[in-house]
Amino acid sequence: MAPSDSPLPAAAGPPLLVLGGGGWGTALALVLRRAGHEARVWCHDPQHGERVEASRENSRYLPGVRLPPGIRFGSRLEELAAGVEVVFSVVPTQFLRAALESFRGGLPLAPLVVSCSKGFERGTLELPSSIISALLPASRVVILSGPSHAEEVARELPTAVVVASRRPAEAQRVQQLITGPRFRAYTSSDPAGVEIAGAAKNVIALAAGIADGIGFGDNARASLVCRGMAEITRLGAALGARAATFAGLAGIGDLVATCTSRHSRNRAVGVRIAQGEPLDAILRSTHKVAEGVETARSLRELAGRLGIELPITAEVYSVLFEGKPPREAVEALMGRELKEEA
Amino acid sequence: MAPSDSPLPAAAGPPLLVLGGGGWGTALALVLRRAGHEARVWCHDPQHGERVEASRENSRYLPGVRLPPGIRFGSRLEELAAGVEVVFSVVPTQFLRAALESFRGGLPLAPLVVSCSKGFERGTLELPSSIISALLPASRVVILSGPSHAEEVARELPTAVVVASRRPAEAQRVQQLITGPRFRAYTSSDPAGVEIAGAAKNVIALAAGIADGIGFGDNARASLVCRGMAEITRLGAALGARAATFAGLAGIGDLVATCTSRHSRNRAVGVRIAQGEPLDAILRSTHKVAEGVETARSLRELAGRLGIELPITAEVYSVLFEGKPPREAVEALMGRELKEEA
Repeated sequence: MAPSDSPLPAAAGPPLLVLGGGGWGTALALVLRRAGHEARVWCHDPQHGERVEASRENSRYLPGVRLPPGIRFGSRLEELAAGVEVVFSVVPTQFLRAALESFRGGLPLAPLVVSCSKGFERGTLELPSSIISALLPASRVVILSGPSHAEEVARELPTAVVVASRRPAEAQRVQQLITGPRFRAYTSSDPAGVEIAGAAKNVIALAAGIADGIGFGDNARASLVCRGMAEITRLGAALGARAATFAGLAGIGDLVATCTSRHSRNRAVGVRIAQGEPLDAILRSTHKVAEGVETARSLRELAGRLGIELPITAEVYSVLFEGKPPREAVEALMGRELKEEA
Repeated sequence: MAPSDSPLPAAAGPPLLVLGGGGWGTALALVLRRAGHEARVWCHDPQHGERVEASRENSRYLPGVRLPPGIRFGSRLEELAAGVEVVFSVVPTQFLRAALESFRGGLPLAPLVVSCSKGFERGTLELPSSIISALLPASRVVILSGPSHAEEVARELPTAVVVASRRPAEAQRVQQLITGPRFRAYTSSDPAGVEIAGAAKNVIALAAGIADGIGFGDNARASLVCRGMAEITRLGAALGARAATFAGLAGIGDLVATCTSRHSRNRAVGVRIAQGEPLDAILRSTHKVAEGVETARSLRELAGRLGIELPITAEVYSVLFEGKPPREAVEALMGRELKEEA
């Protein structure tokens, strides 16, 4: 297994709690541990939590990475949450509400919750921060997003993310908690923009995967990324976010990582769809969540409510849920009548 | 060799002239031929021109692509330029002035010249359009740029580019000349922005290649692309270009293609430098031009004159010309003090 490059500092201060024992939750626990904190990881599935805790490896979601002392996996929330002041929520968006409902009373009072989930909830079209605020009304929410594939973060490859809050002191607190030599956090005062960018980019990644899967090249993919950024920025503007956020790490940075990396699950789903696999078979074949699939559904509905055009999202939706041939969808995107650029 | 997917239309109208018989010149001739024009390609090296003309393949710069009838390679400018009204200049920036000086009187009067070269001229720090305007004062210049690797354009993989002029009718004329089913052109009225974006992105691609070459991952590369876009936008603003152009195909679109594609020559040079090969050995080993190397030099000087900070360019310059260890340079970029985004 990959050893840790740097020697670990002794764990100091109150423990930090990560909700969600998938790949990103595990990588984040490593980030926190390397930054000198004790990290505890709550897993929805008790067996999974026990297995990781005993084997010191999350072989299901992040194989090949050894967990050092000072990281503890488990499923008994009250035990794990004792003494915790800051919680990192990495629960997939579609399961977040149910998880928080099951916690009621179990989470420490008024903690700072750092929301790391990406997506829009099906049906309600809510962002993770709204779900957290509704179910934990005494908590203040900070958003964490940016180009951060778990596989690379876990292996200490350099990564930079954004932590966003309208209260500068809270973003700075999280920045200080997580920053280490190979993991840097920049603050932002536009949490809405950072969260929307992180949610919407997964749909663009599905489109990029579809284009790759039908054999289109790097020119086409670059065009899609470029149009995807315009689409996400337009969505953000309609929801009150700042345009500059979409030109930053949480915007174009994360979009580039998600659309071009072999680590991207959403891109990988797009590739398989383009190669003719049915969506339900793809989703059944993996225990990892491709958030873009549900978010394509939510975003299409949201675009209708907001009265805005999201052409890439619309084509991805048609491919995923209406049987549109992938090639037709991508050709429609490449061939749109757009005589003059913005 | 790769056959052409679509049947070719008969060539109609006046012939079009491409200056430069490298990969992009050849791909562009194919684009023009597919759009229904006769295309002539002027080569600096007479032997190269004869060989391509006879073998119907540019085996040196674009191997494996058959040239259909209606494309003619050669080196006698007066012959090739007869009857031509629109010229596409694809001569590498550092050789452009000498090429145009050698033509004096040979090019048809007052043609439209479409500048497809990318870079800043060494010493003068001029962009290709200025060189063309100075040496062909009767010509009007239109800029063509965007994510368009020749290898993919030649194989009819979908590609979208930008043609820019302050005179809308001239950009539209070029748009109509080059647009085909798999190659689309959008117009822009910001030629300065389009040309600056195309020139500067090659330096960022060197940085991305260096990061890849020392084993940094997709997270780090995405951060570099994101900061690179900010850097190029800042440069453009200092030179009077519009910010929106840098969010378009010629800006972020081309930057993504150049920083993430296996076809990118500048990225490939960065990878080799990171792996310890000396620059001069790399440059000697290839007959393809990595424009970013000279442009790093020009941009560094330009940044000084303009009084702006171009941190990625500065680090790339230090690696290329001052012996700075590549890892130190990329770590300096990843670790810059930048507490708050934008």
